[in-house]
Amino acid sequence: MRSFELDARLARDTLPVTVLGLSEVRLMNDRRFPWAILVPRRPDITEIFELRPLDQVLFTLETLSLAEGMKRALGAKKMNVAALGNMVPMLHMHVIARFEADAAWPGPVWGVGAPEPYSPKDATRMIDLIKTAALPS
Amino acid sequence: MRSFELDARLARDTLPVTVLGLSEVRLMNDRRFPWAILVPRRPDITEIFELRPLDQVLFTLETLSLAEGMKRALGAKKMNVAALGNMVPMLHMHVIARFEADAAWPGPVWGVGAPEPYSPKDATRMIDLIKTAALPS
Repeated sequence: MRSFELDARLARDTLPVTVLGLSEVRLMNDRRFPWAILVPRRPDITEIFELRPLDQVLFTLETLSLAEGMKRALGAKKMNVAALGNMVPMLHMHVIARFEADAAWPGPVWGVGAPEPYSPKDATRMIDLIKTAALPS
Repeated sequence: MRSFELDARLARDTLPVTVLGLSEVRLMNDRRFPWAILVPRRPDITEIFELRPLDQVLFTLETLSLAEGMKRALGAKKMNVAALGNMVPMLHMHVIARFEADAAWPGPVWGVGAPEPYSPKDATRMIDLIKTAALPS
């Protein structure tokens, strides 16, 4: 069996946050949006339904727990939860906190302008916030 | 307790397909993309994690079953599965079959151009396809 190895583009665009039971949690390095991704540590998976059934449920619970925690911690207006994967086939779930004042509201965030990387200090702060949000409440 | 009533904009933009254990399945009336939405028949829900835990799992299974069925029936390149809700707060899950030749590839479909309504005949064909795809395999 092949082992899991994070896609090179995901690795480049994101910063590591934590590892849950199934998924790696990472922060999209774009300070315009509080934007996490979850990547299940299973090789050769591009669609959620390709995970075995137990992993589908676990992936859902990890995703929703993170979404709920981020919404609460950030006071977001709405959470966007999406698995697209048109550009990066490796399954990854976007969990994005949205605000009426953000750079893309009310449209989706993908493809809007150019990413603005975090300063080291702000990255650390957001990583800590997401790490705490990802813990089961 | 308030009863469930479909959001007016969702009703206007979509055509009815079928009703599952939890969700209404509807077809986005835009022939550029095979695009279904699932709306859980629960009042006053805007985020997936606001559903009670059993409904979260059921909603996931209905979503993934539909996504898998549509991918197989249509031979899609990739499925996009997303709960955004920035414009219509009522929780609805997008399940969209994507192709490298479609009008938005590899970007997301939201906000791209103007919807192109189906002819009655093509609507019936796609509704039948999605209804079959939504059935548990």
